[in-house]
Amino acid sequence: LKVFSLNSNVELAQEIAKVIGVELGKCSVSQFSDGEIQINIEESIRGCDVYVIQSTSSPVNENIMELLIMIDALKRASAKTINIVMPYYGYARQDRKARAREPITAKLVANLLETAGATRVITLDLHAPQIQGFFDIPIDHLMGVPILADYIKNKELKGDVVIVSPDHGGVTRARKMAERLKAPIAIIDKRRPKPNVAEVMNIVGNIEGKVAILIDDIIDTAGTITLAANALVENGALEVYACCTHPVLSGPAIERIENSKIKELVVTNSIALAEEKRVDRIHQLSVAPLIGEAI
Amino acid sequence: LKVFSLNSNVELAQEIAKVIGVELGKCSVSQFSDGEIQINIEESIRGCDVYVIQSTSSPVNENIMELLIMIDALKRASAKTINIVMPYYGYARQDRKARAREPITAKLVANLLETAGATRVITLDLHAPQIQGFFDIPIDHLMGVPILADYIKNKELKGDVVIVSPDHGGVTRARKMAERLKAPIAIIDKRRPKPNVAEVMNIVGNIEGKVAILIDDIIDTAGTITLAANALVENGALEVYACCTHPVLSGPAIERIENSKIKELVVTNSIALAEEKRVDRIHQLSVAPLIGEAI
Ligand SMILES: Nc1ncnc2c1ncn2[C@@H]1O[C@H](COP(=O)(O)O)[C@@H](O)[C@H]1O
Ligand SMILES: Nc1ncnc2c1ncn2[C@@H]1O[C@H](COP(=O)(O)O)[C@@H](O)[C@H]1O
Repeated sequence: LKVFSLNSNVELAQEIAKVIGVELGKCSVSQFSDGEIQINIEESIRGCDVYVIQSTSSPVNENIMELLIMIDALKRASAKTINIVMPYYGYARQDRKARAREPITAKLVANLLETAGATRVITLDLHAPQIQGFFDIPIDHLMGVPILADYIKNKELKGDVVIVSPDHGGVTRARKMAERLKAPIAIIDKRRPKPNVAEVMNIVGNIEGKVAILIDDIIDTAGTITLAANALVENGALEVYACCTHPVLSGPAIERIENSKIKELVVTNSIALAEEKRVDRIHQLSVAPLIGEAI
Repeated sequence: LKVFSLNSNVELAQEIAKVIGVELGKCSVSQFSDGEIQINIEESIRGCDVYVIQSTSSPVNENIMELLIMIDALKRASAKTINIVMPYYGYARQDRKARAREPITAKLVANLLETAGATRVITLDLHAPQIQGFFDIPIDHLMGVPILADYIKNKELKGDVVIVSPDHGGVTRARKMAERLKAPIAIIDKRRPKPNVAEVMNIVGNIEGKVAILIDDIIDTAGTITLAANALVENGALEVYACCTHPVLSGPAIERIENSKIKELVVTNSIALAEEKRVDRIHQLSVAPLIGEAI
């Protein structure tokens, strides 16, 4: 068994290697002068079960190509199995044709991984669990909810908890979280009464005087989640926490979070946070033990 | 017949469209906040023969992913055929395992294009013509030499011409150029007499008092070509021109060329030149008529 890390999330890879008690495999991943990726695997992997750790977070296209080229190199070096550990699956939101003539990039990525030579994929909280069906190779789908729920459970909170889904799509996830915390759920029910009229944030469920825990899979520009948090406070929530598995946090996200009513944002390390995103209000939990177990 | 341009070389795409007398198809290729590519094809292409123009030059990984996602979108929108016009084929130099456990990325790219749904490829001066065999779909391999040779032929030069290959690998290309110009050839024969001793530039063939025309397929950092030019002048060449199909021109290339003995560098527009690379000493010829004919 050999574990290699590519460039997207070296810290997590090191933690995973530690959890399962191996050293990271030696390989160099660099760029030629013109920006083409150069990969050198610096130890024999013939006949080995190889694990490659790479989240396809930003820069997503670089990270996908890095992964595909690594898989190609491993295949040609006679690896026995090539297991892709992809804690964050880039392009997962492009998982269907929402409009005419759109690509389904999440499926394309699955095809590319198989074509390159992947034999198994381990991933975490896919935006839609249906993406599992995009693969014809085994795929292990891990869940971040228990990690997030355990952290919340061990926190001293000011009052009773209610788990809140920021939209209709996330109610199943909220339900799972609520079960682990033995708490009720609520849903933010956004509606646009008429075209060109601002959305109304209607809250379904009782949140007054409670500690509201928002949960989502991805927080990207943080528009939805910060509006939801503010609506919860306006409607009488005692305080608001937010949880998500994948901290994409692009564009105005950090600024929005720091200006919002969110007391703490709890995320996992499926995506490495750049220095400027490591702010006090964000708390990162490790998925290394979870992934270590799956390996 | 529909022609779409992606982002790598819009100017060339417009020229090609003009040559064949069509308008470029409407599509928007942009990025979401997190850097994921968003493609929208804005006109029906059902049942059409579609041509997509994209060189996979720098930023190579962005440009490859853009192309693959576009192919996926076209396939799902029921294009009849999906023809990829790739004047510059990125990763062509990674076309074999030069060392143990290297990828063969040129083959990987071929597989990715086929997996995405390409049905035919049109390309220009592959670094190795063997890359044609990496595909199981039709591939048209065009030649830049006639365009470069015609330009040189019509130039007023100070004396008799000799075509020079900057290394052993390029002799066949130099021979083709020489035939069109009815000129003799010479070869720069680099040798390292002992390890850790500087290379000796030995010139095989007669260049004294002649106008030397260096020819290569790719000029990247311009190290080889500028050293070759200087060696030619030191050995009595009257003046030195350099030609290549693909002006990659990364890193120190422009500086090296401007400080070299090269009088003029003649290239094609297979790769668009960024503003700062459009210097007096570089002359760009269009491959649009050549490609237009192949379409
Ligand atoms: N990287 C991205 N950033 C923002 N929106 C995206 C991204 N990728 C896809 N989408 C859009 O998000 C929508 C899917 O999200 P959802 O409705 O939450 O499943 C689709 O309309 C996509 O066009
Ligand atoms: N983008 C690149 N820039 C510089 N060298 C490269 C690049 N891609 C591949 N190579 C190397 O160039 C060599 C092949 O070039 P050649 O010998 O001219 O066919 C191989 O050793 C490759 O490792």
